[in-house]
Amino acid sequence: MYSITVRGHMMVAHSLRGDVFGPAQQLHGATFVVDVEFRRPELDADGVVVDIGRANAALGAVLAELNYRNLDDDASFAGRNTTAEFLARVIFDRMAAAIARGDLGPPGLAVDSMRVTLHESHVAAAAFDGRVR
Amino acid sequence: MYSITVRGHMMVAHSLRGDVFGPAQQLHGATFVVDVEFRRPELDADGVVVDIGRANAALGAVLAELNYRNLDDDASFAGRNTTAEFLARVIFDRMAAAIARGDLGPPGLAVDSMRVTLHESHVAAAAFDGRVR
Amino acid sequence: MYSITVRGHMMVAHSLRGDVFGPAQQLHGATFVVDVEFRRPELDADGVVVDIGRANAALGAVLAELNYRNLDDDASFAGRNTTAEFLARVIFDRMAAAIARGDLGPPGLAVDSMRVTLHESHVAAAAFDGRVR
Amino acid sequence: MYSITVRGHMMVAHSLRGDVFGPAQQLHGATFVVDVEFRRPELDADGVVVDIGRANAALGAVLAELNYRNLDDDASFAGRNTTAEFLARVIFDRMAAAIARGDLGPPGLAVDSMRVTLHESHVAAAAFDGRVR
Amino acid sequence: MYSITVRGHMMVAHSLRGDVFGPAQQLHGATFVVDVEFRRPELDADGVVVDIGRANAALGAVLAELNYRNLDDDASFAGRNTTAEFLARVIFDRMAAAIARGDLGPPGLAVDSMRVTLHESHVAAAAFDGRVR
Amino acid sequence: MYSITVRGHMMVAHSLRGDVFGPAQQLHGATFVVDVEFRRPELDADGVVVDIGRANAALGAVLAELNYRNLDDDASFAGRNTTAEFLARVIFDRMAAAIARGDLGPPGLAVDSMRVTLHESHVAAAAFDGRVR
Repeated sequence: MYSITVRGHMMVAHSLRGDVFGPAQQLHGATFVVDVEFRRPELDADGVVVDIGRANAALGAVLAELNYRNLDDDASFAGRNTTAEFLARVIFDRMAAAIARGDLGPPGLAVDSMRVTLHESHVAAAAFDGRVR
Repeated sequence: MYSITVRGHMMVAHSLRGDVFGPAQQLHGATFVVDVEFRRPELDADGVVVDIGRANAALGAVLAELNYRNLDDDASFAGRNTTAEFLARVIFDRMAAAIARGDLGPPGLAVDSMRVTLHESHVAAAAFDGRVR
Repeated sequence: MYSITVRGHMMVAHSLRGDVFGPAQQLHGATFVVDVEFRRPELDADGVVVDIGRANAALGAVLAELNYRNLDDDASFAGRNTTAEFLARVIFDRMAAAIARGDLGPPGLAVDSMRVTLHESHVAAAAFDGRVR
Repeated sequence: MYSITVRGHMMVAHSLRGDVFGPAQQLHGATFVVDVEFRRPELDADGVVVDIGRANAALGAVLAELNYRNLDDDASFAGRNTTAEFLARVIFDRMAAAIARGDLGPPGLAVDSMRVTLHESHVAAAAFDGRVR
Repeated sequence: MYSITVRGHMMVAHSLRGDVFGPAQQLHGATFVVDVEFRRPELDADGVVVDIGRANAALGAVLAELNYRNLDDDASFAGRNTTAEFLARVIFDRMAAAIARGDLGPPGLAVDSMRVTLHESHVAAAAFDGRVR
Repeated sequence: MYSITVRGHMMVAHSLRGDVFGPAQQLHGATFVVDVEFRRPELDADGVVVDIGRANAALGAVLAELNYRNLDDDASFAGRNTTAEFLARVIFDRMAAAIARGDLGPPGLAVDSMRVTLHESHVAAAAFDGRVR
């Protein structure tokens, strides 16, 4: 299995509902450094998993929808806690949709799984890992 | 598959028996920066893998049993080499026991696998990865 | 010159006023990973710059006043932009006050300069560096 | 599953053929920081996955064949793009051959899978992960 | 003293002349991860050292002149070894020129010193640190 | 001012005397990842601060005297606490002696200051910074 990983980041505000979150129930924020790993069993004729430039552009577009925002105001997350693990899935699904739309070109269509990791500090991270097709 | 990872560390002395270890047969020491990744297929109703606060507390308790000690004096390791890979398994088993005891609360009981990684320097690491249930 | 550096972090929401900030004028957030370096010309009789345990406790106390909060609601920052560089100075001044109060014990009183660095992502940081006495 | 990971690096020039590579079609270069993870289901009698000293020596020998070179001049890569993902496979295959030759000793023969990761910057990496036996 | 640091990178080929360089006399390459620290004694009215967006744009422009190139073919370096420490100075001088041209706006004109660090691997870096005005 | 920085590491056991050290009074251990920064005002005719190969060799020789040892048994540290900040100075002095002996060649004799940093975990470091000549 081959893979490439690209990195971006976003800086968001949010609050979390539930006693389990303690002080994180207050409005606070986070920098999420986001790694997306794209995997496929064989390389394409150019010798790549996907075009790294297009992968970066696609990730940048997904992160731009969230960056510099208060996620509590985002209607698409109404009634949900925007935990790091939940956001890993959101980014996974949006990257999978970008691939399906062809934003990563033909090599993207051969990607069969991805891992999205959100690093929220030097001591904590969350991830979603799953099949794309 | 969703996951979260928490990080701690411990600073221990030990020696290793066997020609394969060369100068590491002498009493020496290591800082082990320890990452524990908890995985489960779905998030709970709060949107988390486990409560990160309880995960940190459980890891802290496991590391406190080892931290600032000479592992050669620990009766539970008698006759064993406390290599990084062996210690990764020790921490895995103790974290699994903490989960089984309920130290991570109900979400912990849904964790089905973990990975414990010990970074011993900027150029070497060891891990144990396995199922919890 | 000898130094020790300890690390903590905080997760805050804020917004910034001024065209220069572009989208960061919206309410958003950041994880700030905070390094505090304490410096003095000679070590004390124990061979330390300061007691690292007390240094961590003092930093933890300073960060706890800011962590998990919306800095826009903090009266002590009224009329000011809570940029990373501004916050580096806030933490510097509060750590200097902790030292002056004796929170780091007698070795702390020998610290003559500090550097406070806030890492806001994998690609950006801010710092304040200055004399304590 | 147990694993250990060792790290080395190489500094190479190369160019890539194909419109997908944009400016990387020009002769340029990269530092590849290379992690090799060795995995096996059980530890050996000494408590190790493999002898870390021999693992480092084997990786060093593989990287020495590539380091400080222009990969465009390497006959073994004629007609191929030496992308990071392609090179991850090259290093994987050469490490697997070293294991098969006995360069890692008897414990190496118990390694059943490996992962080779090439970090090409702080924001991009490539990997090949596969079975050895 | 306040500072902010921004990060970029470039991927270049080059060779070095002189016995001291051993195998690095051959055409090879490097990824240089580049940190530029901007320093000034006081913050401006917005509470910043410089506009981080403009700092990133200026660094990006300087790196674009070097990125994806064989530095042996760059006439501006004729007769010079493009070591990491030499390149740190080149980037320093070009950033200083950008500041003087006003590319960082009025806050840039208050920058009085900078540090440019080039990380060439996980085990080596070079820097140039100096006054701008 | 130009600089280059090289990195090595050592894995040692030790204990510390004094109530300030709490549990670190017990025999324990640490990995110290060691960075040595060499500084001089101008580059030499080859365009370097020092020969990085010789710098690595000199650091390796200094670390080999300490690596894989129990520092409590080292006569040269009798009556002293081998704290990270103390060891930073030890390594500084031994590197300075290596430079004075000519181990770094003629460029080494132009080094006028150094900084030695010991990272003992992901959250703590110590350093000694001083003039060589």
